[in-house]
Amino acid sequence: MISFENDYNNGAHPKVLQRLVETNEERTLPYGADQFCESAKAKIMAACDDEDAVIFFLTGGTQTNATVIDSLLSQYEGVVAADSGHINVHEAGAIEFTGHKVITLPGHGGKMRAEDLDKYLEGFNNDENNAHSVFPGLVYITLPTELGTIYSAAELDAIYRICRRNNIPLYVDGARLGYGLAADGNDITLPYLARHCDAFYIGGTKAGALCGEAVVFTHGNAPRNFFTIQKQHGALMAKGRLLGAQFDALFTDGLYFDISRHAIDMAKRMRMMFEKKGYRFWIDSPTNQQFVIIGNDDVERLSRDVLFTHWGKADESHTVCRFVTSWATTEAELEQLQSLL
Amino acid sequence: MISFENDYNNGAHPKVLQRLVETNEERTLPYGADQFCESAKAKIMAACDDEDAVIFFLTGGTQTNATVIDSLLSQYEGVVAADSGHINVHEAGAIEFTGHKVITLPGHGGKMRAEDLDKYLEGFNNDENNAHSVFPGLVYITLPTELGTIYSAAELDAIYRICRRNNIPLYVDGARLGYGLAADGNDITLPYLARHCDAFYIGGTKAGALCGEAVVFTHGNAPRNFFTIQKQHGALMAKGRLLGAQFDALFTDGLYFDISRHAIDMAKRMRMMFEKKGYRFWIDSPTNQQFVIIGNDDVERLSRDVLFTHWGKADESHTVCRFVTSWATTEAELEQLQSLL
Amino acid sequence: MISFENDYNNGAHPKVLQRLVETNEERTLPYGADQFCESAKAKIMAACDDEDAVIFFLTGGTQTNATVIDSLLSQYEGVVAADSGHINVHEAGAIEFTGHKVITLPGHGGKMRAEDLDKYLEGFNNDENNAHSVFPGLVYITLPTELGTIYSAAELDAIYRICRRNNIPLYVDGARLGYGLAADGNDITLPYLARHCDAFYIGGTKAGALCGEAVVFTHGNAPRNFFTIQKQHGALMAKGRLLGAQFDALFTDGLYFDISRHAIDMAKRMRMMFEKKGYRFWIDSPTNQQFVIIGNDDVERLSRDVLFTHWGKADESHTVCRFVTSWATTEAELEQLQSLL
Amino acid sequence: MISFENDYNNGAHPKVLQRLVETNEERTLPYGADQFCESAKAKIMAACDDEDAVIFFLTGGTQTNATVIDSLLSQYEGVVAADSGHINVHEAGAIEFTGHKVITLPGHGGKMRAEDLDKYLEGFNNDENNAHSVFPGLVYITLPTELGTIYSAAELDAIYRICRRNNIPLYVDGARLGYGLAADGNDITLPYLARHCDAFYIGGTKAGALCGEAVVFTHGNAPRNFFTIQKQHGALMAKGRLLGAQFDALFTDGLYFDISRHAIDMAKRMRMMFEKKGYRFWIDSPTNQQFVIIGNDDVERLSRDVLFTHWGKADESHTVCRFVTSWATTEAELEQLQSLL
Repeated sequence: MISFENDYNNGAHPKVLQRLVETNEERTLPYGADQFCESAKAKIMAACDDEDAVIFFLTGGTQTNATVIDSLLSQYEGVVAADSGHINVHEAGAIEFTGHKVITLPGHGGKMRAEDLDKYLEGFNNDENNAHSVFPGLVYITLPTELGTIYSAAELDAIYRICRRNNIPLYVDGARLGYGLAADGNDITLPYLARHCDAFYIGGTKAGALCGEAVVFTHGNAPRNFFTIQKQHGALMAKGRLLGAQFDALFTDGLYFDISRHAIDMAKRMRMMFEKKGYRFWIDSPTNQQFVIIGNDDVERLSRDVLFTHWGKADESHTVCRFVTSWATTEAELEQLQSLL
Repeated sequence: MISFENDYNNGAHPKVLQRLVETNEERTLPYGADQFCESAKAKIMAACDDEDAVIFFLTGGTQTNATVIDSLLSQYEGVVAADSGHINVHEAGAIEFTGHKVITLPGHGGKMRAEDLDKYLEGFNNDENNAHSVFPGLVYITLPTELGTIYSAAELDAIYRICRRNNIPLYVDGARLGYGLAADGNDITLPYLARHCDAFYIGGTKAGALCGEAVVFTHGNAPRNFFTIQKQHGALMAKGRLLGAQFDALFTDGLYFDISRHAIDMAKRMRMMFEKKGYRFWIDSPTNQQFVIIGNDDVERLSRDVLFTHWGKADESHTVCRFVTSWATTEAELEQLQSLL
Repeated sequence: MISFENDYNNGAHPKVLQRLVETNEERTLPYGADQFCESAKAKIMAACDDEDAVIFFLTGGTQTNATVIDSLLSQYEGVVAADSGHINVHEAGAIEFTGHKVITLPGHGGKMRAEDLDKYLEGFNNDENNAHSVFPGLVYITLPTELGTIYSAAELDAIYRICRRNNIPLYVDGARLGYGLAADGNDITLPYLARHCDAFYIGGTKAGALCGEAVVFTHGNAPRNFFTIQKQHGALMAKGRLLGAQFDALFTDGLYFDISRHAIDMAKRMRMMFEKKGYRFWIDSPTNQQFVIIGNDDVERLSRDVLFTHWGKADESHTVCRFVTSWATTEAELEQLQSLL
Repeated sequence: MISFENDYNNGAHPKVLQRLVETNEERTLPYGADQFCESAKAKIMAACDDEDAVIFFLTGGTQTNATVIDSLLSQYEGVVAADSGHINVHEAGAIEFTGHKVITLPGHGGKMRAEDLDKYLEGFNNDENNAHSVFPGLVYITLPTELGTIYSAAELDAIYRICRRNNIPLYVDGARLGYGLAADGNDITLPYLARHCDAFYIGGTKAGALCGEAVVFTHGNAPRNFFTIQKQHGALMAKGRLLGAQFDALFTDGLYFDISRHAIDMAKRMRMMFEKKGYRFWIDSPTNQQFVIIGNDDVERLSRDVLFTHWGKADESHTVCRFVTSWATTEAELEQLQSLL
């Protein structure tokens, strides 16, 4: 059985694991005040080229989204997202659990369009009765999106300009950020991202860590007492070292970017394998998630030897199937898949 | 200045006010344990022909929706509604404030379609990963809808059958229930409604009361300790008599139905006035809310003498305008409107 | 059966009811934008001698406390109260329902002591680990307290000084404010109160209204978008006129103060009646709540003809009984009680 | 610098780390469906001698408490705890954040007394007005307590009997459970505990793991859809293997108990060291937390070379200082401390 089910079916990247092993004997202060967190923060700050960034480490994506979004909203505000946004569909209502509405705009290939956002905000601002509605207090986008697509630098800039004009912060969910930055055609860099949003997170869980997401509040945007908000949300790890050491490894010698690039290379090869066999794709994704349209008989056959996600129905006789590569995907796995196709 | 802005621009119906006056001197027990609440409950129970109904009085619509919906959901469940549903658009996130997601289906003239609900629930039930999503725990419809439309008995039955098959309760928001029951073409009665849902409320605020909504948990569906849930939500009135006395008056000698019918008659005459002048309607509504398409110049002119709601843009040069009648609308008001058209 | 059970066992004061009757025919704007609310606000502002006060009307005490407290707290903050505070014991967890902890200090006859508050805040500020605790974000006191006692002007001033020194707002629950202001020995006036706290409410439900509490955010302290917060909490009345007209009547010609004084006079007479019969008091209350220690046999006998509250056990053979007067208490009721003692 | 600040100043126990290393290459299913979680659950179930136990792994103590408590309460219920309970003082209001009140009883050396619980519940049940109060829906105790003390089997049994008589579940916070089970004088075993409560957790973070707590719902008490509740609370780890593998190691060959015993041995030696020097103790603790009363000058001097917690003031010239041992405490560390005393 080989698995392309997701990008967290693996353990830690060897260098990440090694860092855990080699730091294991040291005594540390708790709750992120340790030497490894300090080191990791400095490296991330440098990678973002943002001296005023304030960085926190949390454990997982849903936890990070719920905590950060809640911390940036007033109680009567909601967060604006594409309808396919992870917070809207696959977080079990974690945002609403904190009291906030997810206000949806139509997604286009998983992306929010600047013009949709503009129109919505203009409509809200011009609505005489808007005091009876949830106020838009934050804009949320995912990079890359849940469908594997990426924003161009120009698209991100357009969205951020609208946010700033409306005095609404922009938060970028980077659960798979590395795979977006490494994608062919991507023209966004970490420093560019840091300058074009108010908060984002660098996903570790899906990119070489056992767990962990690094939240970056850019250019002085950190909310007051975020530490306590973390604790209140059950999102503060006692042994913060576990997160710090892993991110320290990931941001040493460009490891995060290297291993992200590997996943993209594997995805491209996988894509070509499917293409050669005549398969069509549900969406054109330059990142590590590939959505292939497969006849239902083939789906059943393949499922005996390969783990992948049945994303949805394409038509009566075909299924959209998601195949995901990661930093850990091996050539051997690709070859096995090839032989099964 | 005359007002067709809404159906709560008025005081109490004279008979409702009279009941408040004539009961004012009596001493009562607090929190709904008074003689007037008891009497009103008995009359509503009779009007619903439901001996097992359990009835509570709350103050307003948003409060009632938030309290009832929260009381019927498990913490990890959300409420399914048409996207135009009041809870989704005009309650300032009161549902999300209680921790629950509003799961939206496309509205059709404000109505939820049984087949959309069926498809959504089937999709949810068949989704292997649904444990990561908000569970549908309640279905919410509005009768009449926010756009003035009504469900037929058959449509309500179809929705309720799906709910029962899926073991999900159905809750009907009756903020304007009287105006729906009194509408031409309506074939739903109070007893029919009580048999075809698990909870609903009879709106008082928009139908003759100063405030107050009567929640009916049908055939034994009341949640445990709803009284305490009311208190917790700030939805328990100390002098419950204010609500009881009003509903007692409304359900004496069919007052609620008579005054609802008056509003419908007024709405029909208003509708004819607009039709005769050649105005078109944005939606075909048999109830007390009429949505007229008016040229922007006329909108401006009319606005000098008439209060009405600018519902939205019809096209570049026309606006959808909402005109609302109520139990309190007078012939004189209609005549003034006529002369202004 | 006569009732001294509480101060909301009655209808509206005749002048309040009269105002509702005489204004009933007028058309109004909804949600508190009506002429009666405007008039009432102006009169309250004048009574408070606070030109920068911002006033809102809500329906009941628990609703008001939950909405105001939530509006004044950051998400990670709690509200500091005496352990006997209404929000801590008799609001069914409405504060916690909004996500905030009630941090308790020992009450002394229902009152918070300035030195206890000072010591707690000093302890919190000096605790190196306080980032793991709920931050004190608001101080809540009740005037008069749940036990009928009142703060002196000096005591209020002392508490407010500590609040200001710590940059924490002070909120005063005035569910029975009139009865406190009218009490013998009270040296706090409405203007003094307005200058010595950041928000308070003037209770209407227990002092002549059918429902309604007037929230006063003093000298420019109103939170942003409180209107929307009201809506979100189900605390916004569609027909705000119901609240406005009542408060307009209460603040015309000093009615609120006159009827409060009546309750105090009745309470004093009742107190003397008990004293003459040799009853002892559980606490020395100058307001409209009297706590009498009564032998259990007498309690049983009295309960046949009088409604009052069994507050708690005094000792094995005696019960603390609460007898409450109000603006509506009559001499006849007192005489009946007298004859029963 | 040596550290007795807490029991999470260390990395993973070598055998735990080794398990992570040796399992790192395997592919797994996500979200706790992996082979390591399965194995760990089986071992814990066996250690608890409870075939009907249902086990979940979460990341940290506050997260676990908030998620489990919320899952076991109805919305209008609160959790009863000793006032020194971790959920009441050091979790930044995480319980209230989920909408529930922490109802406090006086702690006695950190412990709840059965008679206090009994009296409180009897009082609640006999209070005619209890519908206005938060209902007790769960009892929470900590074993060992935040002050290092332990319950005897008889004490636990007494509390559980009261819970069962009142039909209220009992939840035991075992953040330091191992250190309690290993304490001298303890007569509670894991199977005994499993039979005498409805849910508890076995703390991993403070006992050899990098992170992780194992929640045990005993004899069929697991709430419906706890998986989704975890997700909603941000308490579901994508790579559940991280938790599973660690607990698998901890429950192999009694490691959890062995290393807990080590901490107790170290604590006893530390205690003797202080005693020999004439120090007094603030509380008599048989577990790994020792509370020593130290003169302020000595505190300052010691602080230069040793990390420990300033727990509070003993008197004007003395401080209560907490020294904590763990599975990782070494003889060398004790010797250094000795030489500093």
